[in-house]
Amino acid sequence: MSPDSSHPLERLFNPRAVAIVGASTSPAKQGYRYLKHLLDYGYKGGIYPVNPREAEILGVRAYPSVTDLPEAPDLVISTIPAEAVPELVEDCARRGARFLHMFTALLGETGVPERKALEDRIVTRARELGIRVLGPNCMGIYDPAIGLTFRTVSSTEKGNVALISQSAAHAAEVMYRGWVRGLAFSKVVSYGNAADINETDLIDYLAGDTETKVILGYIEGVKGRNFKAVLRKAASTKPVAIFKVGRSPAGARAVASHTGSLAGSYQVWQGLMRQSRVVTADSLDELVDLGIAFAKLPPPKGRNVGVAGAGGGGSIVAAEEFEANGLTMPSFPTDLVTSLKPVVGDGWYLMKNPIDASIVAEAGIGYTRIGAMMKLMANHPLYHILCWDLGEWRPNGPEEAALYRSMVDVLIATHHEITKPLAAVLRPADHLHEWRWRLAMETQQQCARQGLAIFPSVTRAAVALGKLTDYYSQIIKEG
Amino acid sequence: MSPDSSHPLERLFNPRAVAIVGASTSPAKQGYRYLKHLLDYGYKGGIYPVNPREAEILGVRAYPSVTDLPEAPDLVISTIPAEAVPELVEDCARRGARFLHMFTALLGETGVPERKALEDRIVTRARELGIRVLGPNCMGIYDPAIGLTFRTVSSTEKGNVALISQSAAHAAEVMYRGWVRGLAFSKVVSYGNAADINETDLIDYLAGDTETKVILGYIEGVKGRNFKAVLRKAASTKPVAIFKVGRSPAGARAVASHTGSLAGSYQVWQGLMRQSRVVTADSLDELVDLGIAFAKLPPPKGRNVGVAGAGGGGSIVAAEEFEANGLTMPSFPTDLVTSLKPVVGDGWYLMKNPIDASIVAEAGIGYTRIGAMMKLMANHPLYHILCWDLGEWRPNGPEEAALYRSMVDVLIATHHEITKPLAAVLRPADHLHEWRWRLAMETQQQCARQGLAIFPSVTRAAVALGKLTDYYSQIIKEG
Repeated sequence: MSPDSSHPLERLFNPRAVAIVGASTSPAKQGYRYLKHLLDYGYKGGIYPVNPREAEILGVRAYPSVTDLPEAPDLVISTIPAEAVPELVEDCARRGARFLHMFTALLGETGVPERKALEDRIVTRARELGIRVLGPNCMGIYDPAIGLTFRTVSSTEKGNVALISQSAAHAAEVMYRGWVRGLAFSKVVSYGNAADINETDLIDYLAGDTETKVILGYIEGVKGRNFKAVLRKAASTKPVAIFKVGRSPAGARAVASHTGSLAGSYQVWQGLMRQSRVVTADSLDELVDLGIAFAKLPPPKGRNVGVAGAGGGGSIVAAEEFEANGLTMPSFPTDLVTSLKPVVGDGWYLMKNPIDASIVAEAGIGYTRIGAMMKLMANHPLYHILCWDLGEWRPNGPEEAALYRSMVDVLIATHHEITKPLAAVLRPADHLHEWRWRLAMETQQQCARQGLAIFPSVTRAAVALGKLTDYYSQIIKEG
Repeated sequence: MSPDSSHPLERLFNPRAVAIVGASTSPAKQGYRYLKHLLDYGYKGGIYPVNPREAEILGVRAYPSVTDLPEAPDLVISTIPAEAVPELVEDCARRGARFLHMFTALLGETGVPERKALEDRIVTRARELGIRVLGPNCMGIYDPAIGLTFRTVSSTEKGNVALISQSAAHAAEVMYRGWVRGLAFSKVVSYGNAADINETDLIDYLAGDTETKVILGYIEGVKGRNFKAVLRKAASTKPVAIFKVGRSPAGARAVASHTGSLAGSYQVWQGLMRQSRVVTADSLDELVDLGIAFAKLPPPKGRNVGVAGAGGGGSIVAAEEFEANGLTMPSFPTDLVTSLKPVVGDGWYLMKNPIDASIVAEAGIGYTRIGAMMKLMANHPLYHILCWDLGEWRPNGPEEAALYRSMVDVLIATHHEITKPLAAVLRPADHLHEWRWRLAMETQQQCARQGLAIFPSVTRAAVALGKLTDYYSQIIKEG
């Protein structure tokens, strides 16, 4: 809950009662799912299915109309056809509802003038009656702290990253891709056409939300008139990373037909991002990566990276990718080499930054010694950031699982012994064989639970670490 | 087998007998693994473990020295320490060996002058004696047609894509990431320091290899003196795609310490690629993607793409990514709209390029109708390339697996009914839950077996399709 409980959107995120209009007994309908989610995810407030043809749905008493509810619902979720919504708005006002979330779609985004006019009419009337509208054409709110969700198979873990997304599918993708890597969310909002509540309102709320430490956004078009000021204020209180589309003519046309938004000039947008200290994400994947980096890593105090690469080729790619993202990989200084010798033994002369893990193996140097070398780099003032690439692990069979598990244990132990930011590169677990998938996914979850920042490739780690470093170096410069 | 059986490397790829020097009874040793691979993968020629302390290894008679072998081995694999290799070279010559593959490492790549001198001495003497050397510091040959492999858990499927890689880990990564997506290889060579046999020799061989339709390369530094001419000739006979590192100062330094190669100027390299009609890959992932595109897709006859996107947000990203890669996504022409109406029914006015699959679902239009629309686009002269993004599938539980399977069936049926290139976007199966991983991996394998070109994201499909189109448009232009 926000400390500023007087924020106009407070009861959208913390409703004391929720009504689902169009609640259904059919599992294929969204009106069934919203109800089931509230029950499954332990929402504690009043739960009111609304359906004139049912007395009870999923064991919960149903009501013929919003006006019949025993208490005023802070949030009404509409899953009924658009034509029926104007009457619903009147009912909401009669019963004292505050927020109307319209899952209902086929309105402004269709590009059909009559449908856009209907959307306008709904929103104008709702505002007259003191009701704020989320959507239309959106999935709504995910708030694990209170048991609100729009997705089945959602994580119940509370986190500190918030996400706003004009696309429901993109919201779901960022959530799912984040969960797999241990990212947990404070709030997620799929806000669709933004006919009333828009990106500006949402960012304004999240800027003051004490449960949110990082704000991520997928934005198609800006609707809020004071967007610039709100964004600037939000970005001065916590990291904000945004993936903005409509970057090209074809993109702008596609934006118009998705949420009916005007994409605006991307050049203007870029200038605004820079002035506001907002981090630009260039893809959905990058948005997830930035969420991981900002939520899980301490601020880097400089640009020098110490790397343990997977093998020779991996070390080269690491060197190039870090350099391409404004980071440097300085060679071991003399005093570090002196400390390395007793730790590494005979093969010390083969050790370089990046550390080639395959050479380490060939030279008979155990994996624990890579951990020891990483610690030496982490404790040396020359290095500010560490990156450890476990590589595409190539086991000879399930019997080598123990070896891989011990490598992961060394990685986790090292993570707990150093204070500088450490990025772990673990390849995605999209493996052909079950034993291999299981091993990769289990160890990844183990790393995630221990708070490691996990990236699927060195390239993606380098991009996120570069932007993380740029962000904090700007903060330091500006005092 | 090459039609030109007089090629100097013919017996490297088709040896009639293989000796493993340093063959071992210990499963942790590479000298055990090479032997086990030959047995497990059904290599039909003579198999000769060499180890002075063992009479038999893995049930195969072992010999004290190469000179004791009952036949001349075309290929000798060395897993013994570098210091012992000069004597091995003499033994190889005495017994009439043709190729010495040195898994043996810690030579030129260490940067230590004495080790580089040892490498030079080995190679010079081998050449004097008529023996060609592969490596040192490499994994050697994978050739599924004859049962040679350097990786356990290798695919036994014969394919038509060849890969040469100076990094063994990168070779393994391309192979594994390719196999998961249905890419099969004719030959893979991990060639390490390239002290003798180099990229030029290998490309020259593969250009004439009738089993190879596409050549992929990961190159750190060029060693062959007639590289330019050989590359140009190879690229004029079949598609060649290369990921060249050493693109920056840090990359060039890392190259030197991996395989002791000189990276050379990347600008010079780029010019050479352009003149030779070689496709440039910018990452290892892209190398896999280009292998998929060139091996599985027919040549596009133009730049217009028809897309079925996952949802509204996905459609926008698709539009932007295709446009960024030189492709266009024209709107439906009037005659296509006319044919669409009866197929799609009521929701026809919502249909655009890209087709938003979520709108299709909302409008009650079944998934089979997306297939029908894709076919209409494929049959229309305006469109040259198709792309179908199944999206990040968000099931409500295992009970919805049948729905997803039917979507995949429609995709496969559509693929078989159209002749224009169709890229399928299937998200990687790195799922948290076993049922979901199993469903994703099984359906992906099903698509792969049916010959679909699978990409993990629209972005990666767009890059590969852009380069595929550039390649063939150049071919057409140049006649």
